[in-house]
Amino acid sequence: MKLTGLSASLGRWLDGSGPASDVVLSTRVRLARNLAGVPFTHRAREEQLAMVYSSVLSAVRKTPALTQSLALEMRELTPLDRQFLVERHLISHDLADNGKLRGLLVLPDESISAMVNEEDHLRLQALASGFQLRTAWESVNAIDDELAQDLDYAFSDELGYLTACPTNVGTGMRASVLIHLPSLVLTKQIGRVLQGITQVGLAVRGFYGEGSQIMGNFFQISNQTTLGQNERETIDSLERVTKQIIDSEQRARDELLKDARVQIEDKIWRAYGTLRHSRVISSQEVVNLSSAVRFGVALRIEGLASVQTLNELLVRSQPAHLQITVGRELEQRERNILRAEYIRRLLGEGGSVPVVSN
Amino acid sequence: MKLTGLSASLGRWLDGSGPASDVVLSTRVRLARNLAGVPFTHRAREEQLAMVYSSVLSAVRKTPALTQSLALEMRELTPLDRQFLVERHLISHDLADNGKLRGLLVLPDESISAMVNEEDHLRLQALASGFQLRTAWESVNAIDDELAQDLDYAFSDELGYLTACPTNVGTGMRASVLIHLPSLVLTKQIGRVLQGITQVGLAVRGFYGEGSQIMGNFFQISNQTTLGQNERETIDSLERVTKQIIDSEQRARDELLKDARVQIEDKIWRAYGTLRHSRVISSQEVVNLSSAVRFGVALRIEGLASVQTLNELLVRSQPAHLQITVGRELEQRERNILRAEYIRRLLGEGGSVPVVSN
Repeated sequence: MKLTGLSASLGRWLDGSGPASDVVLSTRVRLARNLAGVPFTHRAREEQLAMVYSSVLSAVRKTPALTQSLALEMRELTPLDRQFLVERHLISHDLADNGKLRGLLVLPDESISAMVNEEDHLRLQALASGFQLRTAWESVNAIDDELAQDLDYAFSDELGYLTACPTNVGTGMRASVLIHLPSLVLTKQIGRVLQGITQVGLAVRGFYGEGSQIMGNFFQISNQTTLGQNERETIDSLERVTKQIIDSEQRARDELLKDARVQIEDKIWRAYGTLRHSRVISSQEVVNLSSAVRFGVALRIEGLASVQTLNELLVRSQPAHLQITVGRELEQRERNILRAEYIRRLLGEGGSVPVVSN
Repeated sequence: MKLTGLSASLGRWLDGSGPASDVVLSTRVRLARNLAGVPFTHRAREEQLAMVYSSVLSAVRKTPALTQSLALEMRELTPLDRQFLVERHLISHDLADNGKLRGLLVLPDESISAMVNEEDHLRLQALASGFQLRTAWESVNAIDDELAQDLDYAFSDELGYLTACPTNVGTGMRASVLIHLPSLVLTKQIGRVLQGITQVGLAVRGFYGEGSQIMGNFFQISNQTTLGQNERETIDSLERVTKQIIDSEQRARDELLKDARVQIEDKIWRAYGTLRHSRVISSQEVVNLSSAVRFGVALRIEGLASVQTLNELLVRSQPAHLQITVGRELEQRERNILRAEYIRRLLGEGGSVPVVSN
């Protein structure tokens, strides 16, 4: 088990301490970089991938802020470990599923990480709690500047950073917020809001980013544009729009509380009651129920759970997390039982019925 | 408020102490009697009804076991009070809804009661906790014998007791058990069982007796026959069949636990979690959810609630009970909120969110 450091703790970005944590779960900024003179990953030969990997590793080792990094080579990890990293939002499905020499470098608190030989040679990522686009960008930018002293990035004066996919050429930056919009969904304003988001050139995605499903009223909002505007402009624009969305969600919350407080409270407490007492539960149901409870926390309802606990629940009840916690592979049926047990323990359930787990 | 004595306590038949209380909620035996030489209630004049009422009251007052009886004249009660008595299984809808001189005599512990001028002049009833047909019959029979010393019952040597409806002629007795059969319902054996019951000449009804709906897996099983067999034969036959049903339910419980223990536990605990945390809840939902919890108690799952608590919840969360508890009429919306609040208190919920009840 190479993941001990990561599986024991929970990334700092999940501690619920960041600004506007009652609406924004996390902020992410990633930069796509490639090494000059080396074919992009999908066309590179094995020894070229090895060269990229060792160059990045060497540059990372020289960067003071990254000396604590764990280096994980994908081929040395079990499928379960790789799935764990996907669930932690540290690697993509693409990085997990490939047999080539690919790796992840990651600080123990997960605030900074780098995928090596994913679609691009290097994908640097900053993850931060709540809504803090500037901070996340500044931190990944500082790391990028340091690495650039050691790595020769593929860069065109005309286009900017060169990337494997044209949609990333330019800044190579994708900044995103994972935002929780239960009131806009409940009041059916979400369609209009999402339409507005795409009209200003931003993208909306699901819980696990590109190609993933919308679950539990979580939306990932990110920039589409990497050409024709600089990083600061992109961050400013995303920040401005996100603030508007937070305001809309807040107004919708106020409306809902005014018109249907007790019905909303009922929905939230029933979700909490189910989470706290179920004996068999799927990941999908956990996302949906904990979304309702998170909504309750945002509405300042006392007696539920902290945002940190909800984040922990959301992350640690995922399939690979559960299996790594017990140290063995489990069938779905066993996972659903173990998940319910884990959640009851986390939420401090009083009942004492032993759970059958054979 | 004439019902103070009744509304403060809960009938002894609801204390969950009786035999087989994990399957049989309660036993009831009622005897239909009429006074000789007086037209049946629906054809009697007002002064004849008054004579019946005063004769019965006088006989009751002379019966040592009934000296503690409360005498409630229906016309003096509010609709809410009458609804309360229906919910307590002490009077019928028919007695509640009529403007004529009708009354209820009832011991404070509800073990013995008598409706006067319902369909028959006198309907004596014994209610007992759990499965105790003989005891209930013996107790109502003893009272009947005492009253017969004072009242001249309409009786034919050929037919037995004469009653307003031919279906009661003979013994005038209706004995019933209110039985909880969740496993037979879950394993889809209930149809066959109910068919068997009707084939041996017994009747199956819903939670509130004749004409009422099946709710929460509760079935009322009673004799149909009042002619051609004596009371003891009727009681024996009902007892024998009930024992078989209890055995079938028990076998189905064992099967379910063997095949799907964790799914059953999940269903039960989710119901408990919803009851314990909801903020708005209907009577119907309470019956269904508490049925699941009752099933859990029968399965010896620790940490739920006692049978007595579940009985209390079932009875006191009914609309008239709730309104009498708060001392005023409430709209359905308010009742649903107050009901959830009452149940949370009863089940000892920890959360502290104030419930909006304006």
